[in-house]
Amino acid sequence: MTVITLTTDFGEKDGFTGVLKGVIWGIYPEAQIADITHAITPQNIFEGSMAIFRAAPFFPKGTVHIAVVDPGVGTNRRLLAARLGDHYCVGPDNGIFTPLLEDAEKRNLAMEFVHLDKPDYWLPDVSHTFHGRDIFAPVGAHLAKGVSLDFVGTPIFDPVRIGLPKPIRTSEGWEAHVTVEDIFGNLTSDLRADHLGGHTEVSFIIAGHEVSGLVESYGWKKPGDLVAVVDSEGYIEIAVVNGSAAKILNARVGDPIRIIISKQ
Amino acid sequence: MTVITLTTDFGEKDGFTGVLKGVIWGIYPEAQIADITHAITPQNIFEGSMAIFRAAPFFPKGTVHIAVVDPGVGTNRRLLAARLGDHYCVGPDNGIFTPLLEDAEKRNLAMEFVHLDKPDYWLPDVSHTFHGRDIFAPVGAHLAKGVSLDFVGTPIFDPVRIGLPKPIRTSEGWEAHVTVEDIFGNLTSDLRADHLGGHTEVSFIIAGHEVSGLVESYGWKKPGDLVAVVDSEGYIEIAVVNGSAAKILNARVGDPIRIIISKQ
Amino acid sequence: MTVITLTTDFGEKDGFTGVLKGVIWGIYPEAQIADITHAITPQNIFEGSMAIFRAAPFFPKGTVHIAVVDPGVGTNRRLLAARLGDHYCVGPDNGIFTPLLEDAEKRNLAMEFVHLDKPDYWLPDVSHTFHGRDIFAPVGAHLAKGVSLDFVGTPIFDPVRIGLPKPIRTSEGWEAHVTVEDIFGNLTSDLRADHLGGHTEVSFIIAGHEVSGLVESYGWKKPGDLVAVVDSEGYIEIAVVNGSAAKILNARVGDPIRIIISKQ
Repeated sequence: MTVITLTTDFGEKDGFTGVLKGVIWGIYPEAQIADITHAITPQNIFEGSMAIFRAAPFFPKGTVHIAVVDPGVGTNRRLLAARLGDHYCVGPDNGIFTPLLEDAEKRNLAMEFVHLDKPDYWLPDVSHTFHGRDIFAPVGAHLAKGVSLDFVGTPIFDPVRIGLPKPIRTSEGWEAHVTVEDIFGNLTSDLRADHLGGHTEVSFIIAGHEVSGLVESYGWKKPGDLVAVVDSEGYIEIAVVNGSAAKILNARVGDPIRIIISKQ
Repeated sequence: MTVITLTTDFGEKDGFTGVLKGVIWGIYPEAQIADITHAITPQNIFEGSMAIFRAAPFFPKGTVHIAVVDPGVGTNRRLLAARLGDHYCVGPDNGIFTPLLEDAEKRNLAMEFVHLDKPDYWLPDVSHTFHGRDIFAPVGAHLAKGVSLDFVGTPIFDPVRIGLPKPIRTSEGWEAHVTVEDIFGNLTSDLRADHLGGHTEVSFIIAGHEVSGLVESYGWKKPGDLVAVVDSEGYIEIAVVNGSAAKILNARVGDPIRIIISKQ
Repeated sequence: MTVITLTTDFGEKDGFTGVLKGVIWGIYPEAQIADITHAITPQNIFEGSMAIFRAAPFFPKGTVHIAVVDPGVGTNRRLLAARLGDHYCVGPDNGIFTPLLEDAEKRNLAMEFVHLDKPDYWLPDVSHTFHGRDIFAPVGAHLAKGVSLDFVGTPIFDPVRIGLPKPIRTSEGWEAHVTVEDIFGNLTSDLRADHLGGHTEVSFIIAGHEVSGLVESYGWKKPGDLVAVVDSEGYIEIAVVNGSAAKILNARVGDPIRIIISKQ
């Protein structure tokens, strides 16, 4: 009962995501399939890469992550499957797995990459516009069923990577960047809380506003207050209690956050 | 193959709901997981309480309902699991299960409540902002897998309740209240149809409009007509055929409905 | 582990689709359930018919398709279950399965239709407004579990059909029609690419704009270009690379597309 996850920009309206499940269950009827999100902004590879990166650690060993944000569908971009430690990834070779891959490198996990060039593991008819259905879903189902990575493609060693924002050390502390705006309008950054080295006299400047100190959770301040918290994956997050920091600050993904550490 | 349901205000965009499934399947791979809704208005406990109340009766015995609308996450609000007859509930102890609980009382079902204080049944690292993932999902998975309620927490006898609207007997009939506005704009009330005692000469006054009589279903009137029907759970509902009563009447959850019974 | 699909206009907000799953798993706990879409425009039977028609071919043998777009719920419209080749369909007898049915006829598949009149296979209490939950979901679950079509209803031979647009042969080529606008704003038509008979000097006139030639996929042109492609089900589609053809052309479902074939 291996788990397969789906991360796409397909939306929920057109039945595309249901079709992926039909294809998967046709090959591997026991698959447990989790939708991560289908609301990635169309063709936004970075946004897709963050969604799968944040979700993947909470899935069991052996999970196969299919991610399809694929502006190059039908061109000669490569088709990727990867093993990163004990998880598998399947999707276009356009960098969508970069954060997962860099994290696996950092943790010295075993990694393998293949270019999908074995049509035996695809649907019999492959369209030019829907490789999610015709290639990635069937390959993902075969991997979940236990087919080895070697069987579905030919080894490659240079998967495409996208540039990711990184926090920068400054004389006063750090410059971080907003990486995700969630549905509540909370703004997550690329700075892990442990980079603050335990300092508690910290302030955060974003979009012309200053936030002083870190609070444990939203509920410790009153509705409408602007706060900095450690998000549930360990990153610094700017939020408004029971409100939307994104709207109130007019801030968005990519915006810088100045972090000032007062050394006592 | 126990069923687990999910009711949250997480939205579908950020992958939070997929993560809950990853956590659940990591503990109990056979779980059948049904999303009730993830579109509860952020932090609206009452709206969440109605969603799970309306859905729960249609799930099989043994189902575990996880509901996470949790403005107090990370503060000292308690963490609840309950057995109400042959269903289980897991979520913050903030009243989100009140309608289910009051219904169980009315039907004299056996009930047990525990405060979740056994971290053995949680994820190893618990964040301050995402107890849905770190506590409620794993506890729900363990309960679905067959772990006893006694194991996951310590008995309590005073679960938090929220105030629920109740229909009021009046000299002319009833005063009811809108409890749910659904996606079609239909307005469900807190008055069960059987409170009308079989009277058929009934009229309903809502937001300055009068509706005479009850019809069996929308299709018996013409598009655009304002009607009162018995909804699919047995409550009085105000609707517009093929239209939105909420928009046309400019009515919303909490609004009163005067019900006038003409005695012959 | 038979698959059941769900296609409705219920939206994702109110818990209606979760309830269908509760009912199904109460009868057949092993069902794999795929949401095709719940975002059909309320009461739009044609839109629902296209959604299920496009998705169904990618599901395994034995799949049961439940489709509920049901403006006549609670009136005397019939209740339908059908076998079309090796798939089953369950829903109101209002024409929602017409494209699947006509396709089955074209391919000479075996077909059977029944009017659902055996309450033994329904929920015990049937409402007037939610037959999806009370009749179609339980009947679908019983069929998926292996109950024969004869058991759940009485044979009929005249299922309701809706009129479907068809491409028309013209002196210059074809007149086609937009049948689906997807989330990307791509406009699919009723003309199969093989109707062009291999001609490559083709132009398409839609909403006053002309598109010359067919390209293999979006990625072969630059962002913003208006293109004609063969969609993933083999139909002619008008699209804008990384943009919305529907918005840019101000075109919609039902609009004509003139197709001019230059014979060399």
